[in-house]
Formats: sequence, structure tokens, C-alpha cells
Amino acid sequence: MRILGTRSVIASTDGAIPDPDQIAAEGLNAIVARGGEPLARRMANIEEHLQRVSAEAGAPLAGHARATIAAGGKRLRPLLVVLAAESAGGPALTPEGEGALVRAAAAVELVHSATLVHDDVIDGAQLRRGRPTVVEAAGRDAAIATGDLLFSRAFAELARNGDVLQLRALSDASSSLATGELLQREDAYAPEVLVKRYMLRCELKTAALFEAACRLGALLAVQGSAALADALGAFARRIGLAFQLLDDVLDVSGPVERTGKPRGTDLLDGTVTLPLILARERDARLATEDLSRLRGGSEAEALCDRIAATGALEDARRHAFAIVSQAKRALPECLPGGRSVLLDLVADAVVERFS
Amino acid sequence: MRILGTRSVIASTDGAIPDPDQIAAEGLNAIVARGGEPLARRMANIEEHLQRVSAEAGAPLAGHARATIAAGGKRLRPLLVVLAAESAGGPALTPEGEGALVRAAAAVELVHSATLVHDDVIDGAQLRRGRPTVVEAAGRDAAIATGDLLFSRAFAELARNGDVLQLRALSDASSSLATGELLQREDAYAPEVLVKRYMLRCELKTAALFEAACRLGALLAVQGSAALADALGAFARRIGLAFQLLDDVLDVSGPVERTGKPRGTDLLDGTVTLPLILARERDARLATEDLSRLRGGSEAEALCDRIAATGALEDARRHAFAIVSQAKRALPECLPGGRSVLLDLVADAVVERFS
Repeated sequence: MRILGTRSVIASTDGAIPDPDQIAAEGLNAIVARGGEPLARRMANIEEHLQRVSAEAGAPLAGHARATIAAGGKRLRPLLVVLAAESAGGPALTPEGEGALVRAAAAVELVHSATLVHDDVIDGAQLRRGRPTVVEAAGRDAAIATGDLLFSRAFAELARNGDVLQLRALSDASSSLATGELLQREDAYAPEVLVKRYMLRCELKTAALFEAACRLGALLAVQGSAALADALGAFARRIGLAFQLLDDVLDVSGPVERTGKPRGTDLLDGTVTLPLILARERDARLATEDLSRLRGGSEAEALCDRIAATGALEDARRHAFAIVSQAKRALPECLPGGRSVLLDLVADAVVERFS
Repeated sequence: MRILGTRSVIASTDGAIPDPDQIAAEGLNAIVARGGEPLARRMANIEEHLQRVSAEAGAPLAGHARATIAAGGKRLRPLLVVLAAESAGGPALTPEGEGALVRAAAAVELVHSATLVHDDVIDGAQLRRGRPTVVEAAGRDAAIATGDLLFSRAFAELARNGDVLQLRALSDASSSLATGELLQREDAYAPEVLVKRYMLRCELKTAALFEAACRLGALLAVQGSAALADALGAFARRIGLAFQLLDDVLDVSGPVERTGKPRGTDLLDGTVTLPLILARERDARLATEDLSRLRGGSEAEALCDRIAATGALEDARRHAFAIVSQAKRALPECLPGGRSVLLDLVADAVVERFS
């Protein structure tokens, strides 16, 4: 069922390290292409709207916000908003209906971007999507304020849709994002993190915004209902969960050509992810390994090798694939807009990105 | 007309440095006392709600958020929400009407608290309200996430009121807060900042949330209208503007017994405020003074003295007082809930805090 090859993209780079986001974007672009002109037009409208909103505070005020948005990304979450809306029967075929869809999709991406800007401050990251991060280009203060601005703009945009249920979906998701981040900080360097706790963190940090994207889409459909929002939201939550699991596997497995960062970056930050949790269950010496004692990249890479040797990576991957299958199986066959092949393809693209 | 003495509070501290927020809180408590039992009950309900909401993510997750809220503060903005609602005729006298008022007041305070937590990260502040800041107690990462959480909770709370106009008021204000912060960073150490630009910054950074507080109050009143929201919002915006101007005067004038921080702290951060702008117009040598060359507190204090010597502080104060008078004059005599003496008193308390 995986039809979206990313390997060809990698093969074509002539040794240059490809941007992983770019790889994923290729996969999603293929999906958009399959969706035909209406989907492509919607995604273009969302892109244009994002650029406009992020620039609205006026130059040079919103320079950093604009640069963040302009730097691009996969636009996976906006795509989920649109596909969920289409699966649920589509938005009102009026300029207002179309505008509401565009604003909701933009709002989700703005929240996502705000989180990235703040995450980069926390991680002291210098590059994202091949460009200097806001914290690198403009300093910590500007980056914190820029994240806050993107965050606020998201809610201001969505408020224009005039639907409290939409606002609730987004604000619940962004509460979850922040809680997930706090939880991850608390668990940093912990000698024991339970799988259940790790999964909760992934739900909060990643899956909640995927869910909100599909909920918003369902709410925007003329034939949308609470039941549809629940069904599409549950689908997206699982996809988001698998996305995070596979991202965490990739940190351990590499290779750097796929990820654009050294193996074990999470481990060096003290972040205990599923591969390490599973490996600790299998290897008693790993169970007593203290992440805070890791000194530099080569020690982190050696730890990655030891984790891989336990077979934990395959298990974690298998777990993620099972969640994706579950998501696809649980998606109702009878959706007002027809069962969306494209949503299935997004699910596959998430798997494909990491395999 | 200023009936709320704060000097007695200072006189009674036996040489200990009083917390400036505490001084202001005394003034506001006197106002609440004048409002009688219903106002006191509402403020108590808001307080209780704030504690609950900030703890809701569950221990120990929301520990920092809870500590931030528990550390208190003047609750000036929630008071504005309540007084504006009462001036506009009062909320629906039902549990739901009362609950909506409490949620809106809490939401405004949550946004304010989120901003403080992020500001403390930016300033590397160690103490606030006499307790360690989140950044000091738990580090930068936890502080950024805590601010984001408080921010998200604000919108989640307000969304429960089911009124898009309320959400728009709050999201517009929080966009303004972040933009104001960015603007201030951009202006840092600037050799020339125009009064107009400075006032814009104050509008964004401070006045916008004051305005949102009163707008929310008006929107929550049964007899509320767009015109009332505009009138009360305009009142609050002016009060917020004067509040910021006087705060900036205090940074230069001190004394430390009033502010709890050394004179010239803003100047050391490169923040160009009205006293310096006015002083630069009067003293050619100050016009060429480069803030980035200030080395430590004693140089900053010397600069404060030079600014004071130009008479710029009196002019800035006069300007702020004029704005407060303007605010009071522009407040309609005919409000559905009767012209609020208490709103007038809040205006006076703002002046009193700084004089």
C-alpha cells in the first residue's frame, strides 16, 4: 500500500544531505497532486494566507514570524484539516466557507510553528529547514516573543471563524502541547520511564494537534457532526502518535542522511524515548545507564548501537505500524465525502517517511 | 480625588523593602472593600478558579503554573473585567452568568501571568513577588513551556464561554502583547526612539490587555453592547497606557523602596522609555548617550540623575496624569449599571501607585 517512494529523492541528491522535511514534503506533494486541482488550489490558498497573516504585524515587526512561516515545512497539519473537511462532505461552497477552511488550516500551522520556535529556544537549535532558527538569527528574547506572536495570531485567525467548538479544539490541543513539553522536561534523564508515560507524552506533544487538525476539518464540513469529528479526530490522533514514535526511532537509528542531525540527539538532551525504554527492559546494563553521564556525540552514538542491538528499534517500529493500521481500520467506510483514499495515503506517508 | 493612600503602607514597613505589587494590591483591596460583599465574593471566586485551572493539568505537571498563579499579584485585570461588567449592567444573575464572568476574568489573568513568566525568561529575573521566578526555580525550558501552558489554558477557559467576540478580544490583546515585546527588543539601545513609537509600544505591551479586560466585562453584561464595549475598552486602554508610563518613570525616579529594584534597570536592558526620550530632547549630551555602554548599576543610576535633572520625569508624569483624567472624562456618565465610582477609583489607584 505504500506507494510514495522517498528513496528516489534521497538517491537523487548526489551525496548532499537532504532536508528530512523536504523528503516528507515530497511525499505529501504527491498526495496533493493526486487530489487534483481543487486540493492544490486549497493548499495554495492556505500557503498564501499563512504568509499574509505572519506578515500582518507589519515590517519589520513580524520579520521573524514571517521568516519562520516562509521557511516552509511539510504543511502536514493543514493538509489534514483540508482532507478531513473533504472526507466529511466538504466546506460550504461559498467564499466564506472556503475562507473558514483556509483560516482553520492556517491556525493549526501557526500553533505548530509557534511550538517549533519555542522548541528551538529550549534546544538551542541553530538550524531548521536549512535556515538559521529565530533564536540563532535574532536571539532568545526575540524568539520567545515570536513564538508568542504566532500563537496569538493562531487564535485570532480562528476566532474569525465564529465557532467556539473550533476554538476549543485548538486551545485544548495547545494546552496539550505545552503540557507535553513540561512532561518531557520532567522526565529528562529519568532512570525509569514507563511505556504508558511515554505514550502519554507523545499524545500530548504531537498527537493532540493532529487530532485538532482533523476535528477542525470535520467541524468545517457542512455535513460535519460531533460523531464525525470524533472519528476523524481519533484517526488523526493515532497517526500523530505513530509519527512521534517513528521520529523517536529515527533519532536512534539514523542515518544522518535521513534525519539531518547526529544520532542520539534526543538521548544527549536526556529525552527518554520508546527505543531506550524497550531496550532497558531487555538489557540490564542499559537499565542502569545514566543519560546525564553521556559526554558528547560519540558516546551517544555508541549508546544508540547498544539500543539497536537489543532489537528495540524493530519493536518500536512494529508498534508504530500497528497504530497506523489501527487508525486506517478505525476510519469509517461511510464518510459523507466518501472514504478518503487521501487520508489513507497520509497515513502511509507517515510510515514511509521513516522507513 | 485620590483617596487611597499607599504612603501609610510604606511608612509601616519599618525599613523593610515593601513589595510594590503588594502596595498596589492594598489600594485595590480597598476598592474591593468599597464594592461590598458581592464584589468581594466575585473576586474570591476568580481567585479560587485561577488556582483550580492552573492546577488542572495535575501534579506535578502543572506545578510551575500553579506556583505562578499562587504567587499572587494585584489581580488588577480581573478586577477590571468585573467592574466593567457591573458598570455595563452586570452579568446574567445565574450560575452560568456568574461562571462566565469568573472564566473571563481568570483568562485575562492567565494571559498576563504567561507574559510575566516569559518576560522573566527574557530578563533572566530571579525574583518576582518575593518568590523565585519559574526560570530561576525550574530553568528556562520549563519556564517557556509553563508560559505556553498558561497561555493555552487562558484560551481554553474563555472558549468555554461560547462567545467568539470574547475570544477575539483576548486573542487580539495577546497578539498585541507579543508584538509589543518584539518591538521593545527591536528598539533596544536605539539612539533615537520617537514618542509616537514609544506610545505604540505601551499600547501594545500593556494597554491592549487592560482594554481587553474591560471589553470582556462589557460583553458579559446582559445589557452589554458593542458601543459599551468600545467605551469601556477605551477607558481601560488609557488607564493601561498611564500605568505603563508611570511604571517607566518609576524605573528612573526610584526610590528602590517603592520599586524593589535598582534605579535604571530598564536603561541597563537598553529599553528606551519616555523619561529618556524627553530628556534627550532637552539635553544634547544625553542625546548622544549610548545605553549599550552603560557598565553596571552605578552608571545607570548616574544616568537616571541626569535624566531627572532635565525635568523629564515631571513631564512624563504630567503626561500620564493627563491620560488618566482623559480616561475618566471620556467614561460615559450613563452606564446601565450606573457610572462606576469604582472604575474611577481604579484610575486613581493607578496614579496613586506611582506618586
